[in-house]
Amino acid sequence: MAMRIITVSREFGSGGHTVAQKVADRLGIAYYDKALVEKIAKESGLDEAYVREKSEYASHSNSFLFGLVMNSSSTGGFSVADQIYIAQNNVIKDLAEKERCVILGRCSDYILRDRKDCLNTFIHADKDFRARRIVEQYGERPDSPEKRMKEKDERRKAYYKHYTGRNFGDLQNYHISLDSSVLGIEECVDIIVNAYKNIK
Amino acid sequence: MAMRIITVSREFGSGGHTVAQKVADRLGIAYYDKALVEKIAKESGLDEAYVREKSEYASHSNSFLFGLVMNSSSTGGFSVADQIYIAQNNVIKDLAEKERCVILGRCSDYILRDRKDCLNTFIHADKDFRARRIVEQYGERPDSPEKRMKEKDERRKAYYKHYTGRNFGDLQNYHISLDSSVLGIEECVDIIVNAYKNIK
Repeated sequence: MAMRIITVSREFGSGGHTVAQKVADRLGIAYYDKALVEKIAKESGLDEAYVREKSEYASHSNSFLFGLVMNSSSTGGFSVADQIYIAQNNVIKDLAEKERCVILGRCSDYILRDRKDCLNTFIHADKDFRARRIVEQYGERPDSPEKRMKEKDERRKAYYKHYTGRNFGDLQNYHISLDSSVLGIEECVDIIVNAYKNIK
Repeated sequence: MAMRIITVSREFGSGGHTVAQKVADRLGIAYYDKALVEKIAKESGLDEAYVREKSEYASHSNSFLFGLVMNSSSTGGFSVADQIYIAQNNVIKDLAEKERCVILGRCSDYILRDRKDCLNTFIHADKDFRARRIVEQYGERPDSPEKRMKEKDERRKAYYKHYTGRNFGDLQNYHISLDSSVLGIEECVDIIVNAYKNIK
């Protein structure tokens, strides 16, 4: 089946963000990263900066009850993190219905798992490449890039596990997984763009 | 760095064998699967059919002692499975020195891990696709394709873990991991051929 949506999941510092943006540009389709935060903020009624900051923290609320509420329209009694996830789930499903687009992270591969027109990709890279890129992209900080990388990795894993029950970075979740430190950013973009166009 | 070698690891029934063969054909470079068994048999002094049959069974010999012997020329006192692995290790390292080639499985991604000119790929697929393909490719058998798939998966995992200490199918081991059930065999071939040519 021809593809309409691309999800890009990535390790922090792998350049997945840049890959996703370039893929959308090359294909001339919408790119959802910051624009997704705006939509989630609007849907949840929460402040945009707050949504951005809290988006990768899993809540500690009851998973069973959370599962139930995902099938209803009520969000009463749930943590802010859960409310953000519920809004995120609705916004991503709506977007996928409405338009061809590239969506960065936010469990979008899992949220859209029942669609056959969604190409799920994952960008990873070796630790040295990531550490260098973190300093280049996000600047020097008091913490070492290795420490920042470790914290971010652990947070993403916990968040993904909490809301999807799956393991982040398990290749079974993705149709294409690429090591940007060996392939380079441009080759990753080419591979995803061509696959999106070629799958019938 | 430009690539010289491609390793193709794969889930049973994913079509990884076909992908590897087509990649070698398209690039006009050698393909090592059966020819590798012949070389391993010659190197180990064991019978070819025996090498083929025993190749995915891990031995139960002492891993620490095995680690030591890998750095010496002696194979005395080790199980047949270990002797096969030692021969495989030598043959694969020699091949990679001598010629551009595609190598199917046999822990080749791990054996060649120190080379910068080796593109490691992994082909996986969803279970229905694999079950259908197993029957098409290997014929009907008294055991269900699901049972054959499960046994083969477990054997490959155990073998890979025993000899490499790594987890089979962990995306960190591969530069490109592809789901052939969504991408199709030809798209997998295109992606690997283009990446091999384009990496500088």
